[in-house]
Order: sequence, then structure tokens, then C-alpha cells
Amino acid sequence: MLTVAIVVFPQFETLDALGPVEMFGMHRDQFEIRMVAEARGPVASTHGPEVVAADAFQDGKSYDIVLVPGGPGTRAQNDNAVMMDWLREQAAKAQFVTSVCTGSALLAKAGVLDGRRATSNKRAFDWVMTHSDKVDWIYEARWVEDGKFWTSSGVSAGMDMSLALIAKILGQQAAEDAAEWAEYTWHRDPNVDPFAVPHSLSGT
Amino acid sequence: MLTVAIVVFPQFETLDALGPVEMFGMHRDQFEIRMVAEARGPVASTHGPEVVAADAFQDGKSYDIVLVPGGPGTRAQNDNAVMMDWLREQAAKAQFVTSVCTGSALLAKAGVLDGRRATSNKRAFDWVMTHSDKVDWIYEARWVEDGKFWTSSGVSAGMDMSLALIAKILGQQAAEDAAEWAEYTWHRDPNVDPFAVPHSLSGT
Repeated sequence: MLTVAIVVFPQFETLDALGPVEMFGMHRDQFEIRMVAEARGPVASTHGPEVVAADAFQDGKSYDIVLVPGGPGTRAQNDNAVMMDWLREQAAKAQFVTSVCTGSALLAKAGVLDGRRATSNKRAFDWVMTHSDKVDWIYEARWVEDGKFWTSSGVSAGMDMSLALIAKILGQQAAEDAAEWAEYTWHRDPNVDPFAVPHSLSGT
Repeated sequence: MLTVAIVVFPQFETLDALGPVEMFGMHRDQFEIRMVAEARGPVASTHGPEVVAADAFQDGKSYDIVLVPGGPGTRAQNDNAVMMDWLREQAAKAQFVTSVCTGSALLAKAGVLDGRRATSNKRAFDWVMTHSDKVDWIYEARWVEDGKFWTSSGVSAGMDMSLALIAKILGQQAAEDAAEWAEYTWHRDPNVDPFAVPHSLSGT
């Protein structure tokens, strides 16, 4: 069993966190999903509903896979030293460190993406890039894999990246099964980004 | 503001419930999302993570839109008279009564789909159909709209149906915006079902 830490904080983006839960969860004999936050207990997404963090940062647990969602709440977390320290500690130990949407801003701010290629969502790309000039930011990508660091574009792209990571760990058929069970049209090619707009229009 | 009740019960399917939360939540100035369960408090999805029900059935609230997810937990809920009574009461009052995946089995068992066209996910279709012979079950559909009753196919189809309902209520552009913000490739045509298999193969 591999443990998957889904990090949550106030005003996280609902689907960034819960879409991957569905995909990894389709193989729940292989992945144990843990919601993790600074403190144990309910954490409200930006859309209102609360999820319960079962683990707290101070529990000192390690996880095989760490997934950081985005959302409006990333703005406050960028200044949260407890979050930054935890991300650095976990990134050093985890087998895979992943993010969805503006979650890559948190990883970049923590410095763990230095020297790595990474992406983020298209509508906040300029803002995300301000978090580190040591990251090779890739604008047009559904997700970017660089060693153990996997970062995805906005919201729904997290499900595509999760399926690719499942394929990497459990094999292609396991990912195909998860997508079919979820009746999800998986974007299998990380380089095809339907939401990228021409550079000249995006301003990035 | 329209209120959207997302019904949860033990072992609900994570994305059935939280995918629509993301889509309606993209217009949170128009939709107030409430997680609703038999009792207030944490409810674990089939993948482990808990969400918090803010409202309990016995609160007696009414909602403009009711969404019933599926998941392994539907099997127990079919025999839950409290759930069945609540669904009948709400269905009589709500502007829209919707389901994702095997959530349509609950609506069918409650009798509120009698004489209506409805669909469900492809892998449990035979089982779902056993819940009512008064429903006109449509096998090949991403979602089915029949008056105020909207039912979708498996898991991810709930997001497509939600976007279509947003289009119905707020207009097409509002739905297009929500899909783009979520970087979600919306299946806009309810009659195109990528996960339906030929009748002869499915056994349904």
C-alpha cells in the first residue's frame, strides 16, 4: 500500500483535491488516501463544503505521494511558514510530490521545484511564476513530469495527472480501468493542453 | 441565490458529489452549496476521506436543487426509510432533482422517477434497473433530462450534467465559463455516451 497525502487548507479548490481522490481511490487496495492539514478537523474548500483532515502536519508522518491542490487559499499559504516547512520536509522523503493548479505556487515558494520543469493553471500562470525564478515554467502542458515532481494545469488536469501517475506505478491497464470506472475521458497526452491560449493572447 | 443540496451517506462516490460542487461552485454568487445527510457531521466517502454534512434531513429545510450521488453506499440507502421519505419530500418541492451514477437507483426506489426517462452508470445498469419498472431507463446517454428530473451516467458524467443545468439556469456562457475555469473538457451532448457499449456486449 502506498500512502497518498492530499493536503488541504482553507479555501482550497474542491476538485483539485477530490478529483485525484477518486482516481487513486479506484485502486484502494493499492493506495491509502489521507487528508492532511496544519490541524486535524474540518477544512472548508473555496466552495463552502468542508472535508476532514485526518492527519495534522505535526503528526510527523511520512507519505509516499504528496498532492498539493490550488485554489484561492494558496495566497495565504504562501506566507505560512508551517506549510512551507512541512512541504520541504515531505518533498525530501516522498516518492512523488505532485500539485494541481496553483498548488505549484506553493511548491515553488517552498523551493522544492528549483531547477525543475513545472506547470500550473492557465489563468493564474503569471502570478504562479512570480513564486520562483528558479523553476522552468512550462506554459503549454496538461501536466509536467520531472523526476519525482509532477505538476498539473488547472483543476481537472489533476485527474489526468493522477491517472498518469497510477499508470507509472501500477501499469497502464490500472489507469485505463480507473478512467473507465469513473467514466472519465482521460487526456492521456501531457503535451496536449486544450486550455493553453497563444502566448500573444495570454500575456504570459 | 439558489440552494444546492448535495446528499451524502456512508460510502458515497467521492467525485459524484464533489465534481458537481466544483461546477456549481464556480458561480458561488448564484448557488449556495449545502452538504446534507441523515445526521449532521462527518460522512466518509467510499475512498476514505470524510466530508461534513452541514444540514441534517430532520432540519426540514427545502432546497432549489437536490443532487444524489451514487457509490457502493447506495445499496444500504435503498433500505433506509428515512432517506426514501426525505427524497420524496424534497422531490415534491425542489426545482430540480438530480442524480449521478447509481444515485438514480435511490430516486427510482423512492418512486419519484415513475413515468420518467432516466439513466445511470454503465457498469451497474442492470442492478439500477431492478429498482423500478416504472422508469423508462435510457442506457446510452451521458445524462437524461426529463422535466425537473436530471439523471447522469457514471461519476464524471455528473460534471457534464451539472454544467448543462448551469446553462439551463444561468445561460450557456455561464456554463462555458465554469468549464473553462475548471479546465474541464465538457461533454456538451447528452446523447453522446463514450462509455456505453453495444447492447449485445453489455448484457443489458
